[in-house]
Amino acid sequence: MKRINIGLLGLGNIGSGTYKVLEQNRGHIEATAGLDLRIKKILELDVARDRGFTVAPGVFTQDPETIFGDPEIDIVIELLGGIEPATSFMTSAMKAGKHVVTANKAALAENYELLTETALANGVLLRYEASVGGGIPLIGAITEYLCVNKFSEVIGILNGTTNYILTKMSEENRSYEDVLSEAQSLGFAEADPTADVEGHDVANKLSILMSLVFGKRVHPSEIPTKGITGITKQDIEEAAAEGCVIKLLASAYHVGENVECFVQPTWLNKTHPLADVRNEFNALFIKGNAVDDLMFYGKGAGPFPTASAVLGDVIAISRSL
Amino acid sequence: MKRINIGLLGLGNIGSGTYKVLEQNRGHIEATAGLDLRIKKILELDVARDRGFTVAPGVFTQDPETIFGDPEIDIVIELLGGIEPATSFMTSAMKAGKHVVTANKAALAENYELLTETALANGVLLRYEASVGGGIPLIGAITEYLCVNKFSEVIGILNGTTNYILTKMSEENRSYEDVLSEAQSLGFAEADPTADVEGHDVANKLSILMSLVFGKRVHPSEIPTKGITGITKQDIEEAAAEGCVIKLLASAYHVGENVECFVQPTWLNKTHPLADVRNEFNALFIKGNAVDDLMFYGKGAGPFPTASAVLGDVIAISRSL
Repeated sequence: MKRINIGLLGLGNIGSGTYKVLEQNRGHIEATAGLDLRIKKILELDVARDRGFTVAPGVFTQDPETIFGDPEIDIVIELLGGIEPATSFMTSAMKAGKHVVTANKAALAENYELLTETALANGVLLRYEASVGGGIPLIGAITEYLCVNKFSEVIGILNGTTNYILTKMSEENRSYEDVLSEAQSLGFAEADPTADVEGHDVANKLSILMSLVFGKRVHPSEIPTKGITGITKQDIEEAAAEGCVIKLLASAYHVGENVECFVQPTWLNKTHPLADVRNEFNALFIKGNAVDDLMFYGKGAGPFPTASAVLGDVIAISRSL
Repeated sequence: MKRINIGLLGLGNIGSGTYKVLEQNRGHIEATAGLDLRIKKILELDVARDRGFTVAPGVFTQDPETIFGDPEIDIVIELLGGIEPATSFMTSAMKAGKHVVTANKAALAENYELLTETALANGVLLRYEASVGGGIPLIGAITEYLCVNKFSEVIGILNGTTNYILTKMSEENRSYEDVLSEAQSLGFAEADPTADVEGHDVANKLSILMSLVFGKRVHPSEIPTKGITGITKQDIEEAAAEGCVIKLLASAYHVGENVECFVQPTWLNKTHPLADVRNEFNALFIKGNAVDDLMFYGKGAGPFPTASAVLGDVIAISRSL
């Protein structure tokens, strides 16, 4: 069996979920992919936290160089989140000849050229399926299986927190503030929900999709972005009276030779496939000139769905080694 | 640019669609995948038919051995359909060292072990994304991006003809016979619709999915299969009165250590994501132990969506050469 050694950056919620899924499905991965995936080192300051599993002695490190400088480590998984130090750590890992898997949409959207060019220059692979749509295998589908298509349109519901809030407002006739505070108490929304509710998280994901779907680099700050903080019960009632629901959409489409893109709350007819995407689910609708309309639907966040995508990338790289 | 020579078996509707998509998107494939894909030979008896494009002199052949024996041909695309001679041609091609791409669910479901073992024994790749779900990248997603998951359940609407008939019966309150004859006149149903309406086409696809999703080989004749010919207007009204629609479902799920599977018309609550899959669209709902619920939706048939999947497989193989 092929043994692959992994360096993991970050053992927070997503890192812990990835660790658990790897251990829980170890036998399945060995049997079906013929791979022995080992997390050899973990960069994490908080070694004391109870995560429900025990990390072997000597695996935790507080010095990233012990990971980048370890010749036995093949793949670095970056699950720190945020732009820095994640970007610097990923470029250091790639310069040290490590393949990189990340779920970090903020770092990718901010530093897409730097990260992809560093991978190319160092002959390593950089994969980031989990960065858009969580567990939904969007990026692989677009870049590999659908790559013969020229795409004309992509529309996504790419943030679970805001979709949960809009669904509850619509179905239970509640106010934005009421549902937000409930979502915060349930752990579906963060204490500072700005990145989600103002649409910045979605803009990061749309920036990544623009590069992959249309081959066009657009910095997230260049994407016209409006969040859901201004949506009222009355807005939702007015949409419903016209047979529509309000969804926070990431949209991009060709207008002649140009590609327009934006993030904003949008009225969607209830017959549209995206209108039925409820609660924390995500979905992407895409139109190609051969395949026509496609939609992918699933969980766009959470430790286990994210781990599915992260480990899918790890296995894809491992198979190619 | 890497040049890949292709031998194409069959220039019917799907073959012609594949030829057209390749020519139409040639510049896109060259620019994004760096591949020069050339159809060097085409096995086809009907050379006179007007397909809307011109095949260069010397490309048509009536002798499959001129394709299998051509050392310049890297990949054989099988689009003849039916079990034989398609199976024999695919095994001959693989024994001659050619990678094979096929859309042929009947041959795969009947001869899955023979075809996959022949590929393995000859060190070639056999890919068949188009055989289930047409243009929807199901198989790649399941076998690659989601491969870390253990799956508990898969439910699909995998036949466009029957889904079209059931949709029209439901939405326009029409009889089975009435909609079938309309579908035949529009070309959505074949003159002999048996394979579709009796569920045999879906059973072939479910047989293939059983191998991929559960690692369990089930011959299509072993799958309990019931079609839609007995569905009446009254059945549909009774389901609607209970908030349900009737869909022809392919289902497989774990019962303890066993996997049960069947094809049959099934009442589906209107809130289920598959209930909104209308007309000729296909969809697959799948549940994994890391990724949770996922759904893929798109066109499960037709020359262009099928071509998208076939050429996606060709490009995946070409990249690995």
